[in-house]
Amino acid sequence: MGITPGMLILLATATLMLGSYKVLALDPPPLEDFHVPTGIDPKIATAENFTFRGLGVVTPPVAGEFVIAAVSFENFSILKGGSVSAALFNYGPGSVNGLHNHPRASELLYVLSGRLDVGVVDTTNKLFNTTLGAGEIFFFPQGLPHYQSNPSTTDAAAALASFSSSNPGLVLAAPSLFRSGIPTDVLVKTFGVSEITISQLKTPYRPHF
Amino acid sequence: MGITPGMLILLATATLMLGSYKVLALDPPPLEDFHVPTGIDPKIATAENFTFRGLGVVTPPVAGEFVIAAVSFENFSILKGGSVSAALFNYGPGSVNGLHNHPRASELLYVLSGRLDVGVVDTTNKLFNTTLGAGEIFFFPQGLPHYQSNPSTTDAAAALASFSSSNPGLVLAAPSLFRSGIPTDVLVKTFGVSEITISQLKTPYRPHF
Amino acid sequence: MGITPGMLILLATATLMLGSYKVLALDPPPLEDFHVPTGIDPKIATAENFTFRGLGVVTPPVAGEFVIAAVSFENFSILKGGSVSAALFNYGPGSVNGLHNHPRASELLYVLSGRLDVGVVDTTNKLFNTTLGAGEIFFFPQGLPHYQSNPSTTDAAAALASFSSSNPGLVLAAPSLFRSGIPTDVLVKTFGVSEITISQLKTPYRPHF
Amino acid sequence: MGITPGMLILLATATLMLGSYKVLALDPPPLEDFHVPTGIDPKIATAENFTFRGLGVVTPPVAGEFVIAAVSFENFSILKGGSVSAALFNYGPGSVNGLHNHPRASELLYVLSGRLDVGVVDTTNKLFNTTLGAGEIFFFPQGLPHYQSNPSTTDAAAALASFSSSNPGLVLAAPSLFRSGIPTDVLVKTFGVSEITISQLKTPYRPHF
Amino acid sequence: MGITPGMLILLATATLMLGSYKVLALDPPPLEDFHVPTGIDPKIATAENFTFRGLGVVTPPVAGEFVIAAVSFENFSILKGGSVSAALFNYGPGSVNGLHNHPRASELLYVLSGRLDVGVVDTTNKLFNTTLGAGEIFFFPQGLPHYQSNPSTTDAAAALASFSSSNPGLVLAAPSLFRSGIPTDVLVKTFGVSEITISQLKTPYRPHF
Amino acid sequence: MGITPGMLILLATATLMLGSYKVLALDPPPLEDFHVPTGIDPKIATAENFTFRGLGVVTPPVAGEFVIAAVSFENFSILKGGSVSAALFNYGPGSVNGLHNHPRASELLYVLSGRLDVGVVDTTNKLFNTTLGAGEIFFFPQGLPHYQSNPSTTDAAAALASFSSSNPGLVLAAPSLFRSGIPTDVLVKTFGVSEITISQLKTPYRPHF
Repeated sequence: MGITPGMLILLATATLMLGSYKVLALDPPPLEDFHVPTGIDPKIATAENFTFRGLGVVTPPVAGEFVIAAVSFENFSILKGGSVSAALFNYGPGSVNGLHNHPRASELLYVLSGRLDVGVVDTTNKLFNTTLGAGEIFFFPQGLPHYQSNPSTTDAAAALASFSSSNPGLVLAAPSLFRSGIPTDVLVKTFGVSEITISQLKTPYRPHF
Repeated sequence: MGITPGMLILLATATLMLGSYKVLALDPPPLEDFHVPTGIDPKIATAENFTFRGLGVVTPPVAGEFVIAAVSFENFSILKGGSVSAALFNYGPGSVNGLHNHPRASELLYVLSGRLDVGVVDTTNKLFNTTLGAGEIFFFPQGLPHYQSNPSTTDAAAALASFSSSNPGLVLAAPSLFRSGIPTDVLVKTFGVSEITISQLKTPYRPHF
Repeated sequence: MGITPGMLILLATATLMLGSYKVLALDPPPLEDFHVPTGIDPKIATAENFTFRGLGVVTPPVAGEFVIAAVSFENFSILKGGSVSAALFNYGPGSVNGLHNHPRASELLYVLSGRLDVGVVDTTNKLFNTTLGAGEIFFFPQGLPHYQSNPSTTDAAAALASFSSSNPGLVLAAPSLFRSGIPTDVLVKTFGVSEITISQLKTPYRPHF
Repeated sequence: MGITPGMLILLATATLMLGSYKVLALDPPPLEDFHVPTGIDPKIATAENFTFRGLGVVTPPVAGEFVIAAVSFENFSILKGGSVSAALFNYGPGSVNGLHNHPRASELLYVLSGRLDVGVVDTTNKLFNTTLGAGEIFFFPQGLPHYQSNPSTTDAAAALASFSSSNPGLVLAAPSLFRSGIPTDVLVKTFGVSEITISQLKTPYRPHF
Repeated sequence: MGITPGMLILLATATLMLGSYKVLALDPPPLEDFHVPTGIDPKIATAENFTFRGLGVVTPPVAGEFVIAAVSFENFSILKGGSVSAALFNYGPGSVNGLHNHPRASELLYVLSGRLDVGVVDTTNKLFNTTLGAGEIFFFPQGLPHYQSNPSTTDAAAALASFSSSNPGLVLAAPSLFRSGIPTDVLVKTFGVSEITISQLKTPYRPHF
Repeated sequence: MGITPGMLILLATATLMLGSYKVLALDPPPLEDFHVPTGIDPKIATAENFTFRGLGVVTPPVAGEFVIAAVSFENFSILKGGSVSAALFNYGPGSVNGLHNHPRASELLYVLSGRLDVGVVDTTNKLFNTTLGAGEIFFFPQGLPHYQSNPSTTDAAAALASFSSSNPGLVLAAPSLFRSGIPTDVLVKTFGVSEITISQLKTPYRPHF
């Protein structure tokens, strides 16, 4: 058998949630030099409060695998009020960072290595999509659905995302729409498909790569 | 045959787009008493600049039909900078306001008449859903997917939505994800289903009510 | 005798204050999916945290009576950070929602039933006033004095107000200016009238309708 | 006869309006080093674009007279986006800066010379009032009605006000409520007084000092 | 010997820090009438909560001496959320308010008495400088380095600064760059000078006036 | 002879200025899906409007050389309103990104390769400094002076910076303070050193590496 997208999205989600119960927003303007958690005296802050050593470096995954490592104020307190956060994306050959949106941030994606097909859909349902190489950048506006996909069957890719909030939030289309318990009747009427199709979306077929 | 959800969602979208190429956002703070369009002298503004007479009143639709009338700065210029907008929702028996999100606003929904099943999914994929009667209110946070559904097979329902932006934006899940031209491969990997299922979502079955 | 405007304004004020010690503001941008009160774990939030069942429906008051029901973060915690709130206004025949302003929000008023004379004064002392019917909307900018008045001697009216803050605040002109203890000398010089006139404003004549 | 408060308030208003059709707001965050008017190339800006030489110095007025000199983006373009503005207040003996509010800014008042009675009313109609001497400061929150009064019958006073917006706006209670054309019926019902009292407020008695 | 700039800057810094561990920011929009410290019931607030009596009046210092008195939310709690603060500057003959910036606020400087040479440098390293007399105003944009200098060898000067934040912050160029422990190698390479020059900057020569 | 830090800082500055007359700010909240330059119809926007292909990839410079490539709304219009921007930093062996601040943004620095000594000074003149390896992150708050230095004499380093504004601005300490034309007298009094030392800072010695 092998690794499937379903498994990998769950893994990616689980990884992201470790540091983020309520995930990714443009912060209110700061009123202090820096933020330390409630109950801590800022006078005893050290450089370690300004440092996060957990994001890691580019690490090519196996085919089909997509891995996220994210930093937000949930796992790096000093970001609160800083209106900025980041994530490192590693894409195995043929893998996707499936359709999702960030409810509280826009995103700037910089390709570190490999090639990526990227796309975003605006509120008129117009798709803007292109292919990026290393050193190229794409902008995803706040709240709009978007994806990245590694078109190579042999090479990994990697990217670094910058967000305009210390807690941008992540809404993954597949689990939020089809695996959150929304009544079947609502899904049938939203998507205009049969209950059978909805049941397939609720329990995905998990295609091999 | 008759009216189908697919047709109605298209109608609702078309109606909404009339006044809104780029649809629904928390505005920057105002720097003037009120906004008039560029090129207009605020000294000659009249009460009509403060008035919008196009939203209409509660009008029960036929079964399965859902109708939106929206006001934003796109069709009511003075709202720009006002950080507020509104929409009137009329739900025929059994109709839904299918899954969608607002990229730039939170929403407060007040039920005018009838009953509504409502739900919203947070970034941990947890569904918050309940049933509202006339006079009751539900809050949908910025950017999170949500729906309303009229559970009655005989009675219409109506609601008024308040938004925290003069241009909240509307991302409809079905057309933005499945009818915007996103490559089939990306959809297959996002939702973990077969190409056949994806093709059903692209050309919906349009179930009868 | 009967019900007087003075009594009704006091009633309206008292009603509003129940849910709002410090009443009606454009919120800072959100940093989380939703707000729960301090000390509550967001993981145990339920749909009831997103629901407010206390606003009620249109209920025609007797002649001269004006009744407010308001929802803000003071009585509906989840609104905090949502930059939106609402109020239901019921106007008996001949009643007014007297001159007031909201220090922290703009307002969008939608007429649910009946007719309303409405007006707002800008910072050049220019009045913008008109008459609205059911289904029509008027915009009141942040901080500017405004009113609504039911011109009918026989019919009630109702409206729903949307605000651009989760806590807009309400400054009622009559009690804030004349019944808050401001020295008579300041009032005489502000309004250019005699102490006798000021004393009438401090203890109003309460005209019958 | 002599100078009356009514005349002086009109003068003060007129003075303020010279530089400010739409008068006094917390600005959106800046995106540039400084603002120059549309059509001007920032590369040719000089120090004079950063300088305003029209506010003047403390100049004691005659008894009863109150004089404002204000700077906002209306008369000093570079302030736009700067979220700050200022005004110089000169108070003759016995004069008042009558009841007013700023719809888009809070205010910090610093007493330059003399003594001032000051007060502000919150949204619960509670008055906070005190007496300030030279070198003392009082804070007036955004949108709340407030006043200053020179209690001395012999000495002038002066103060400098700082605002949290480049265009705070000014709503003067007397002209906005009583001389803007609001229907008498609305005023009678708002203030609970007779039409005779309202007519006195519309055409003030202008008491001598 | 006598008083030196080095000593005076240290004094000014120390004075400023008394009321401000983390010193000077455009605040998030307010959600309440006024701010009282955590744990205090706003219902028992009095006018003294709105009053700050510690800034003092113009007091000419001796030659070479520059004295700051500042008010921010650090020493005047009610300012929090008010987006405004202030400082009184007293300049002895020949003294300077040396190069510094405010990380979270723009500044409007009003000259109370005397004359001041002022300057600010934009992000293209262009200097905007001029001379101000009493009653004149200069604008310093957020985050840009600026100074004021009293050119008179005989007369004192004074100014009042308004800031667009309740906590603007103060970064003094000399101690932050040269007396904070930054490695000598970094300073040598930043400024392109020898270690000897850097050591002079670390232990200043303290010229007489 | 060879390449000197002075030359390199000038080069870096020049490079940065190409795309940025007024360089690097927390944006106001967006009111549209995306920004296109004035005069362009958003309906004809294409994916190329969302793409920036000019940042380039990691390219090790020679010893002592530091190279910046930056993207802001000045060279990538769609970022306006997006509250995010980025820069790629390449550090030759022994090179520094000398002391500077960003007047309108906080910064999150992610080390791509090599090692970096980094430091930031808060408003109490406390230095927070540490050493970062590849995959590690440091946070620089808005407006505070900071630096990065490559401690290796043999290896290059690289980093990607994320900013909380679409136009953060860059104030380089050396040219803004010493080569912008600020009067020598002000510099002498700010830094407490002799005119000779100031003249060395104005015309730097340019040490070899």
